[in-house]
Amino acid sequence: MVHSDLIKMLSQKTDSKIVLLVMDGLGGIRTNERPKTELELANIPNLNRLAKESLCGRIMPVSYGVTPGSGPAHFSLFGYDPTDDQIQIGRGVLEALGLDMKLQAGDVATRCNFATIDEKGLLTDRRAGRIPTEECVRLCELLSNKIKKIDDVKVIIRPGEQYRFVVVFRGKKLDGRIKDTDPQVTGVKALQAVANNAASKRMALIANKFIHKANQVLKGELKANSILMRGFSVLPNVPSMSERFNISPVCIASYPLYRGVASVVGMDVLHTGMEISDEFQTLKENWSKYDFFFIHIKKTDSYGEDGNPEGKMKILEEVDRHIPMLRELHPDVIMVTGDHSTPPPMKSHSWHPVPFMINSAVCSFDDAQGFNETECSKGQLGNFPSFYIMELALANAGKLKKFGA
Amino acid sequence: MVHSDLIKMLSQKTDSKIVLLVMDGLGGIRTNERPKTELELANIPNLNRLAKESLCGRIMPVSYGVTPGSGPAHFSLFGYDPTDDQIQIGRGVLEALGLDMKLQAGDVATRCNFATIDEKGLLTDRRAGRIPTEECVRLCELLSNKIKKIDDVKVIIRPGEQYRFVVVFRGKKLDGRIKDTDPQVTGVKALQAVANNAASKRMALIANKFIHKANQVLKGELKANSILMRGFSVLPNVPSMSERFNISPVCIASYPLYRGVASVVGMDVLHTGMEISDEFQTLKENWSKYDFFFIHIKKTDSYGEDGNPEGKMKILEEVDRHIPMLRELHPDVIMVTGDHSTPPPMKSHSWHPVPFMINSAVCSFDDAQGFNETECSKGQLGNFPSFYIMELALANAGKLKKFGA
Repeated sequence: MVHSDLIKMLSQKTDSKIVLLVMDGLGGIRTNERPKTELELANIPNLNRLAKESLCGRIMPVSYGVTPGSGPAHFSLFGYDPTDDQIQIGRGVLEALGLDMKLQAGDVATRCNFATIDEKGLLTDRRAGRIPTEECVRLCELLSNKIKKIDDVKVIIRPGEQYRFVVVFRGKKLDGRIKDTDPQVTGVKALQAVANNAASKRMALIANKFIHKANQVLKGELKANSILMRGFSVLPNVPSMSERFNISPVCIASYPLYRGVASVVGMDVLHTGMEISDEFQTLKENWSKYDFFFIHIKKTDSYGEDGNPEGKMKILEEVDRHIPMLRELHPDVIMVTGDHSTPPPMKSHSWHPVPFMINSAVCSFDDAQGFNETECSKGQLGNFPSFYIMELALANAGKLKKFGA
Repeated sequence: MVHSDLIKMLSQKTDSKIVLLVMDGLGGIRTNERPKTELELANIPNLNRLAKESLCGRIMPVSYGVTPGSGPAHFSLFGYDPTDDQIQIGRGVLEALGLDMKLQAGDVATRCNFATIDEKGLLTDRRAGRIPTEECVRLCELLSNKIKKIDDVKVIIRPGEQYRFVVVFRGKKLDGRIKDTDPQVTGVKALQAVANNAASKRMALIANKFIHKANQVLKGELKANSILMRGFSVLPNVPSMSERFNISPVCIASYPLYRGVASVVGMDVLHTGMEISDEFQTLKENWSKYDFFFIHIKKTDSYGEDGNPEGKMKILEEVDRHIPMLRELHPDVIMVTGDHSTPPPMKSHSWHPVPFMINSAVCSFDDAQGFNETECSKGQLGNFPSFYIMELALANAGKLKKFGA
């Protein structure tokens, strides 16, 4: 039996409630210069107390040496095998989700650049001199007003930062398997949108008509007088968490990308503020409405990427101060972890396994004396793939029936 | 996605260098009679210091209870699933590699015995009275001089120890799926070489012609007047480590079998001496030419097989004295481990997981206080399959790109 089918078969609806608290990029490393990690150094009494009452371990998003992007790392937390071909998120979709665009099944999303071409049509700047974001907003409005449809396909345009924007094509029978039009060098013409297979020919035709029209609209512009498109992609079509686990899941995340990834697996997405306190407040206000709550804290990762351990520690401490409020809601299961490690010395995501703890009335507790890399490594769960935490949560919540008689 | 495809997709060429130091049969066990292992008892200050600065764990060559031969144990270290049907090494090939024969793709190798038959052709001794090795050398020369080809197939004969020798058939369209001619009992005739399938019929024909000619050549011999053939096999056809990991790998090993196994996965094989110091000297001299160095130390295993713990400890201590020289080369990643355990109390290979450590600027280090079975089991890597160490090494060396956006 495929493992996901087993878990689906055993899942049952109950009143119990599960909280998955994810601090993005949570894990850290010890180096000669910084022989303690941020979790080891931070003042996090509430998380440490919870760890003593929990079962601890460390989770691997993909594999022993594989550093994941945000998409695969979160799918794994949600119980999906992140290497499954069905669940790969293309660049266009990722950018669209990151701009909080609501994608529908069948939409083709593309990540675009404004670019500069000379009078012969040759590219002189693939980023249109890195025009300011305000200029990008103006140009996207201009394009939106002039190009609402190509044939029967709706065109949705959304500005990003500087020269970046996203175009979503919404219509019937669109297929995202299209080659990039960005030649990656200057001094040549932009490429045509070329179909990778028969099914995507219609999309290639639509894309080329759009490029032609866009070039006409932008003709008079000084810098951004052309466009490049890449990362054509569609939403992964995967069974929802409700289908797979018999739960009503909801996402509380202040950053669009994570709301987007949660929506791919069928979570409801709540409106919330940018502060950590806003997210916990949103949790409290919606406590009666769902039985699975995913709360996402972004800034642990941001400070990790900046190489700022003190900043990361401050966020850990801020989250820690909200743990008593979380526990007052009396969730049946609390899991605290990260999607991947983002060690400040590396200033990037990494492969290192992430501290994890699960707390319930029946979790059993081990000798881990705090919530950090070293103590969680002493935990009884050991190192294991992130995508098993969902079944562990369901089990602790009484939501998994016995397998076999 | 198949895991090996994922790692291949993420691998990227960089200037960083990886060293994999393998002490054959490294792991030991505690018994009532000997309550400390050789690693625990040996004086290995440099390995212990390295362990304190490294991430530690224990690796399983095949599975929790499976004792591997040298072939599977090394393939696993090199990142290949040792149970993959494509990577099985037949007895004939193994023996040929162990005699330092250079096999080519398509060669069929067989492990042979000199044997004694009576006047009716019935076997009276399957090992020809265990003739001395000098006699074996003489007989192999005799056969080589008399039989250079069978039809258009080249015949290469190489003596082994006592009554053992190897025959390699080199020609077009040869297939190794041939039944052994050794009936495993005396008092009967040797079997014919029988094809297991249509594709191997030609090889069976050639083998039977060879056996017939060999028997004619050996007719006058007192003891070794016939031959038995078994373990017909061809080199496994697997993608090289360069293809799979985007590295330039090299093997430094004083024993032929390990050079052979390394050549199967496409490593360059360097000429080196029989002493441990020779191997480290060879490493130093070739430091600029490769980015992945496999150094193999044989004698830890040999003393384990002999049931000689003191001998094994002496080798561990000798390797230990070369660690400072290794570190002075400033490898980006150092891994130290064994291919399998060979506990002296067992006088054989065993299934026990092998101590492992990995050191790099970003390995993070754990609380393991030395390099032995007990301390490595406290390491944060836990127990894991040997074939994941390659991706861990690539990650630590910055040779693996991020997976997904």
